[in-house]
Amino acid sequence: MSPLRITVWNEFRHERTNEKVIQIYPKGIHEALAAPLREAGGFEVATATLDEPEHGLSDARLDATDVLLWWSHMANREVSDERARQVVDRVWKGMGLVVLHSGLLGKPFKLLMGTSGELKWREAHERELLWVTKPGHPVAEGLGDHFSIEAEEMYGEPFDVPEPEATVFISSFPGGEVFRSGCCWTRGAGKIFYFRPGHETYPTYYDKNVQRVIRNAVRWAAPAYRAQPVWGNCKAGWLDR
Amino acid sequence: MSPLRITVWNEFRHERTNEKVIQIYPKGIHEALAAPLREAGGFEVATATLDEPEHGLSDARLDATDVLLWWSHMANREVSDERARQVVDRVWKGMGLVVLHSGLLGKPFKLLMGTSGELKWREAHERELLWVTKPGHPVAEGLGDHFSIEAEEMYGEPFDVPEPEATVFISSFPGGEVFRSGCCWTRGAGKIFYFRPGHETYPTYYDKNVQRVIRNAVRWAAPAYRAQPVWGNCKAGWLDR
Amino acid sequence: MSPLRITVWNEFRHERTNEKVIQIYPKGIHEALAAPLREAGGFEVATATLDEPEHGLSDARLDATDVLLWWSHMANREVSDERARQVVDRVWKGMGLVVLHSGLLGKPFKLLMGTSGELKWREAHERELLWVTKPGHPVAEGLGDHFSIEAEEMYGEPFDVPEPEATVFISSFPGGEVFRSGCCWTRGAGKIFYFRPGHETYPTYYDKNVQRVIRNAVRWAAPAYRAQPVWGNCKAGWLDR
Amino acid sequence: MSPLRITVWNEFRHERTNEKVIQIYPKGIHEALAAPLREAGGFEVATATLDEPEHGLSDARLDATDVLLWWSHMANREVSDERARQVVDRVWKGMGLVVLHSGLLGKPFKLLMGTSGELKWREAHERELLWVTKPGHPVAEGLGDHFSIEAEEMYGEPFDVPEPEATVFISSFPGGEVFRSGCCWTRGAGKIFYFRPGHETYPTYYDKNVQRVIRNAVRWAAPAYRAQPVWGNCKAGWLDR
Repeated sequence: MSPLRITVWNEFRHERTNEKVIQIYPKGIHEALAAPLREAGGFEVATATLDEPEHGLSDARLDATDVLLWWSHMANREVSDERARQVVDRVWKGMGLVVLHSGLLGKPFKLLMGTSGELKWREAHERELLWVTKPGHPVAEGLGDHFSIEAEEMYGEPFDVPEPEATVFISSFPGGEVFRSGCCWTRGAGKIFYFRPGHETYPTYYDKNVQRVIRNAVRWAAPAYRAQPVWGNCKAGWLDR
Repeated sequence: MSPLRITVWNEFRHERTNEKVIQIYPKGIHEALAAPLREAGGFEVATATLDEPEHGLSDARLDATDVLLWWSHMANREVSDERARQVVDRVWKGMGLVVLHSGLLGKPFKLLMGTSGELKWREAHERELLWVTKPGHPVAEGLGDHFSIEAEEMYGEPFDVPEPEATVFISSFPGGEVFRSGCCWTRGAGKIFYFRPGHETYPTYYDKNVQRVIRNAVRWAAPAYRAQPVWGNCKAGWLDR
Repeated sequence: MSPLRITVWNEFRHERTNEKVIQIYPKGIHEALAAPLREAGGFEVATATLDEPEHGLSDARLDATDVLLWWSHMANREVSDERARQVVDRVWKGMGLVVLHSGLLGKPFKLLMGTSGELKWREAHERELLWVTKPGHPVAEGLGDHFSIEAEEMYGEPFDVPEPEATVFISSFPGGEVFRSGCCWTRGAGKIFYFRPGHETYPTYYDKNVQRVIRNAVRWAAPAYRAQPVWGNCKAGWLDR
Repeated sequence: MSPLRITVWNEFRHERTNEKVIQIYPKGIHEALAAPLREAGGFEVATATLDEPEHGLSDARLDATDVLLWWSHMANREVSDERARQVVDRVWKGMGLVVLHSGLLGKPFKLLMGTSGELKWREAHERELLWVTKPGHPVAEGLGDHFSIEAEEMYGEPFDVPEPEATVFISSFPGGEVFRSGCCWTRGAGKIFYFRPGHETYPTYYDKNVQRVIRNAVRWAAPAYRAQPVWGNCKAGWLDR
């Protein structure tokens, strides 16, 4: 089996402007995400960031990507409509997409869901508990019945997304809030996984359970094969062929 | 519009044997559930209990029921297979079913879901927070973004059910657990709503928010009309008619 | 119950340029759709068309609409992004949307689905058979197990949409093709129904079964109530309140 | 990767009593299903039939099965409730289940769906056209936009099942009928695929496309891993640990 071609896309702004974030992710969140995938083996991992030409998401790069990881936050609006549209197009053709944390308000995720992606949130250094709601789902492989993260931003329901095709995790926070923190959808030939954790001011992407979920998700989202749907004007009916 | 014909079914055992439960529900949980529906108007409300002949669920009674409420717990196995099967059959034909609390391990719900209905639980007098995850859904009408119940039994994920068609509430408990506490499914022509609260040792069914959810659910689950599917041997193809 | 406020939106181009279409729909498809709803009672019906200011879809008009019917075809791209976005926004807030025939390639439907809406098609004057796949669903009320339309454009699978929440009709055509011709989705608080029939060169919208489906769909898609989700920064956790 | 352990279960009655069927499947449908899987490699294939002790489905056999294929028809009622229940139990624990043709009225499928499995049918030697409705889905790998079978029994909608999680094929027949002929569901940790073709009086299971679908389905339904859900009384809350 040839290795899965992963592109880790990151906005890469907080990590160049905010001292606290720089300390946690000195090379950027994308490198923190890429490293454990490279170690795991079976993946060919590239990175791309907002301020590169075409945001690092040229057509050629997207065409050479089996699964795209997406982290974005403060600059969601700076992603060009054209590049967002090309990401969406590649998902329709089978590219997997794993959207992390605040990437839910990024253009590709919102375009693919057809919803606002809205939610409640609070930055208060809270413990997150993630419960596995679908034991046996590939994204939950290797986890117990739950895992916890010592400190995170809170996200709360209602999470404005279409009803998930599979809900793999639900989180709770000390304030009592809950959030569907691991959700699956399909759009065209492409699989999409949303995973909640990863606020930039916490070292979440060094957490072993978080890394495992992301690795599982990348494998789950990989296309089975390249589909070539037949659409458009279809002159002869089947019976006349 | 003629009134909806509701049958409130209750096991009615705890309320005859357990002093604490007798004090809370002296006439039985079924009467506590029936009273606010009667007051609301628009419903014709009957009750039925396990120890009546045919569990109070004769074919005639089921045929005269638009929506069945179901509460059961300690005697789930004493419900006859035949009566459970007739409940299922009526759901397929369009009867709505609102399953409450421990009724998730009752025969009709398990037969309709095709899953075990399993879950975590703990009796520890805990506060339940119910978050509305689907604002705009008819079952959530009249509620704010959440409501709370002072003391309840805890239920925790994983809740072994097919992915809900709509998830209307998710609960959290002080222990940190979460539970999909309001869920919708369809089986045949019938609509099914599961609603978590209502352990027998707490006065949950006197709570105004809980009563509102149940009233909403009953209206939502009511059949639009009586469908008469055509099945079986169909000698002539359409083109030969 | 106050009447449902319906806005019938139509591109209204074919009916001013194509002789054949002018003969069938001399006042436009919107008037042919509006007339039977007006007759049915219980609806307050307005119409709007592409070439009106703001396409007849001003914020005020959308705010006064419970359910929007949408027919579009040759000028899908002329709908402004801003007006399409406002339609989507109102659906998220609870406005129902019934999309007809080639409206599946219109901006609002594609934005709400997150898919391409692509399909096969053929204009060859073919009989359409619509089978009811979900007896008991409100949109199928009053129909038998199928109905037929003497001549229509063919649409064929794959229909590039997210898996429907409910599939109410599947069509077959003499060429052997099939199409999911009646499908339901939810986005935010809004309900969406797609209904296939209605090519402009056939008198489909005078068909009694087609009119019934549209009437049923409009009632089904109407909002239960106006939801007001709470989102955004949520300073205090529930437990601190 | 160790080979997938497949058990092909067959009623094996028609092939011992009906001359026509004996000629087509002299060793039984199970052997016709097993042979191409054995040839394909990567599978360890066993067979089991109704009239063996415990129907060939002892606990030990089920425990050693990753994916079970199921063909049944005339003797659906002769399958013991206990063995059917054990099949269901293993699906909940992760065993894949591929149900073929008339197996939709068999006990395991009906128990897992929670519906009647009812449908229209006609034995009239009709051509079946199967359209791929979900290009990119693993079960459709290697197929074009459709394939056909020269002669089959007709099945027609409404097919009484819960809305599929993915609809991979829809068939049409010369009589104009349609049927969702390839559908996916999940129950507990187990994946279920229903595939329509395979009436006993036609040589359908020798068809290369049909064999490919079954091979794809078996791979798709295989468990990712053995989940061990934690359920039951959970004395301490997470926060007290």
